[in-house]
Amino acid sequence: MERLSNEGRLTLGGADVAALAAVYGTPLYLMDEDAIRQNCRAFASALADAYPGDGHVAYASKAFCCTQMARILKEEGLLGDVASGGELLTVLKGGVSPDGIIFHGNNKTEGELRYAIENRIRRIVVNGPEELSMISRIAGELSATASVSIRLSPGITIDAHSAVQTSKLDSKFGVPIETGGAMDAVKLALSLPNLFLAGIHCHLGSPVTETEPYRMAADIMLEFSAKVRDELGVTLGELNLGGGFAAQYLPEQTVKPIEEYVSVIAEAVQAAAKRHKLPLPELVIEPGRRIVADAGLTVYTVGSVKVIPGVRTYVSVDGGLPDNPRYMLYGSKYTITLPERASELKTETIALAGRCCENELLGIDMRIQPVKPGDKLAVLHTGAYNYSMASHYNRVPKPPVVMLRGGKPFVAVRRETWEDVSDRDV
Amino acid sequence: MERLSNEGRLTLGGADVAALAAVYGTPLYLMDEDAIRQNCRAFASALADAYPGDGHVAYASKAFCCTQMARILKEEGLLGDVASGGELLTVLKGGVSPDGIIFHGNNKTEGELRYAIENRIRRIVVNGPEELSMISRIAGELSATASVSIRLSPGITIDAHSAVQTSKLDSKFGVPIETGGAMDAVKLALSLPNLFLAGIHCHLGSPVTETEPYRMAADIMLEFSAKVRDELGVTLGELNLGGGFAAQYLPEQTVKPIEEYVSVIAEAVQAAAKRHKLPLPELVIEPGRRIVADAGLTVYTVGSVKVIPGVRTYVSVDGGLPDNPRYMLYGSKYTITLPERASELKTETIALAGRCCENELLGIDMRIQPVKPGDKLAVLHTGAYNYSMASHYNRVPKPPVVMLRGGKPFVAVRRETWEDVSDRDV
Repeated sequence: MERLSNEGRLTLGGADVAALAAVYGTPLYLMDEDAIRQNCRAFASALADAYPGDGHVAYASKAFCCTQMARILKEEGLLGDVASGGELLTVLKGGVSPDGIIFHGNNKTEGELRYAIENRIRRIVVNGPEELSMISRIAGELSATASVSIRLSPGITIDAHSAVQTSKLDSKFGVPIETGGAMDAVKLALSLPNLFLAGIHCHLGSPVTETEPYRMAADIMLEFSAKVRDELGVTLGELNLGGGFAAQYLPEQTVKPIEEYVSVIAEAVQAAAKRHKLPLPELVIEPGRRIVADAGLTVYTVGSVKVIPGVRTYVSVDGGLPDNPRYMLYGSKYTITLPERASELKTETIALAGRCCENELLGIDMRIQPVKPGDKLAVLHTGAYNYSMASHYNRVPKPPVVMLRGGKPFVAVRRETWEDVSDRDV
Repeated sequence: MERLSNEGRLTLGGADVAALAAVYGTPLYLMDEDAIRQNCRAFASALADAYPGDGHVAYASKAFCCTQMARILKEEGLLGDVASGGELLTVLKGGVSPDGIIFHGNNKTEGELRYAIENRIRRIVVNGPEELSMISRIAGELSATASVSIRLSPGITIDAHSAVQTSKLDSKFGVPIETGGAMDAVKLALSLPNLFLAGIHCHLGSPVTETEPYRMAADIMLEFSAKVRDELGVTLGELNLGGGFAAQYLPEQTVKPIEEYVSVIAEAVQAAAKRHKLPLPELVIEPGRRIVADAGLTVYTVGSVKVIPGVRTYVSVDGGLPDNPRYMLYGSKYTITLPERASELKTETIALAGRCCENELLGIDMRIQPVKPGDKLAVLHTGAYNYSMASHYNRVPKPPVVMLRGGKPFVAVRRETWEDVSDRDV
């Protein structure tokens, strides 16, 4: 986490942010490995404390994925959830055991499924009937049994940007319970060869700021489990309730503690299991954003300050849409500060502009200290969905990811060069 | 351009789209090199026909940049406009002569400016006073004279998404004429050593569907030129009116012919020059999208068709946000078709979903032929701002760019592998 030093300078993981920018250049992603580990442990111990059955925390790699992050997962004993062949290869490279890997996605390719089944990964979360048939066929070809769970759409609408609402009925994700599609998928999974149906999965979307949707999800999912038992005589062993736990981006936001999310889920699952006379399922939760968002920040150098009297002040930095598309995609809001004068009052209101040949912004009406060209500027809590969504728009090289462990920096992802961005050209 | 074959199949540049997908795999960017060249020539000949002074067409690389595209520019005699060190390196690699390169951007880095000045490129388009001073200093250090033009903000608001409106007063781009900032910048450029002030530049934004904003821009810019002559006794040689020429995405859209845009500009510049008793300026226009958009398409494979009765049908393909973020960013609309049954009636209405672990779409309420898993599906006119904006979200490898020349395919950008997307990891 970022803190102020006694000298009023911004630090991350105990290291001076501006000094790191001087060494590694800008734009620069910084990630506090100790904070990531703390967040991992907070989830793991909360689940162990609150849930008497078997419980697992699976990190959603899509939030931030690189080989070093996979090494952290391995060491912290978390499962790794992946959403592509590229993420699967990365977590394997980082040493996560195949039996700790869960593969998600609404449209995995044949090649990806083959790769996953060859590696005998823990679970493939299946999005629909076509995929069940494809997995059964591939597993047969590989003389394997694929362990699957089925993604259900419980029909819950959360209060979030439509792009990240993923459990409502009107969604590309999952088989809906209310239309009968879910029961049909379970029947199909039970009837197909080379498949082991381990359980069911749902994911509400992200960020989910309240705990109530998780309680609703637990109720709906276990009610469905009971129906499966009653109708088909099969008890589903695993319940995966996904992630979406909100992280803090602005000082005025209060987000629920990790422990509160986990205890609400654990209690709801226990209560619903008891109500339906089901054994306690093996419970999986999948935090992504909440584990990495507040462990990271991005440092830029200010290139120009354009004051348009009576209109607005644009502060332009040497990154933007290529390294953080979230404001342009979702209107996501961030906190900014000057790392060298972080304790000074924020007296200015600015629009933070990126460097691209497009009217792209990192935010509007942002408060900051008096700022001038040459200043370093930090955008806080960019650990999730920044590096992972980075593009090469304008052929801008991707910034490096420098991590802090015990206050010491090391490169987790190296900086790209101008040569790199054309290295696939023929 | 895409066409229907006699058998009702989709072709691009004379080649069968589905057959190319079978050879190169999906997702696949296809680009018709002959169509790109045709568009280049349409601009060049329209300008030569309509404008009696010196005129140049500069291609805006940000729309689609790779080494092969730079080779095309070189062979077609177009200038290349770039927006980063990565794009500059690419067009140099492709053989574009430095004196044919224009460097844009609101926040070029010191390293990028040094690289541009070392290479003695044709023009650096300067966004503000800080940059003028920095260029003067660097040019001095390199014993060079940097040739610059100044980007002005003429204060014209066009009818486009706010992200692509770049000439209004409230913009990160350029020095505003109406506040006096533009005249101050000209004075500064004339006073600084190691600089040659070649002219002025503006860019309206993109897409500009009407021609009238270009006429307004020509009037405002040359009125400013006359003011510079009257107040400072200096005649600015070059007028660069930028690009933004609209391309067609939907069959029901009618876009102005290239010749109409160019002739309106040429006439407006001549009329304004005459009115202000100015010599005809060297005129530069900078099409990007219009040169490449309709020369490209993207081919996917359909993974699943999820029918939610009474709600919507989701067709999921093996690409999405990583290869085309424009619907999610701007709500951009595209035309889709099944390349193998392209002449059949489009009787279905679907939402086209990507493969990412996020509720990301390529479009909603799109018309298509009856579609099933395994079908190839083409999104038309993706030549601009698709490959160039591609990300590695979910660590999905970037598709290759396969070009067609005389009906023969060749790889311009190779397909990335799962290994590639982690190749910067340490």
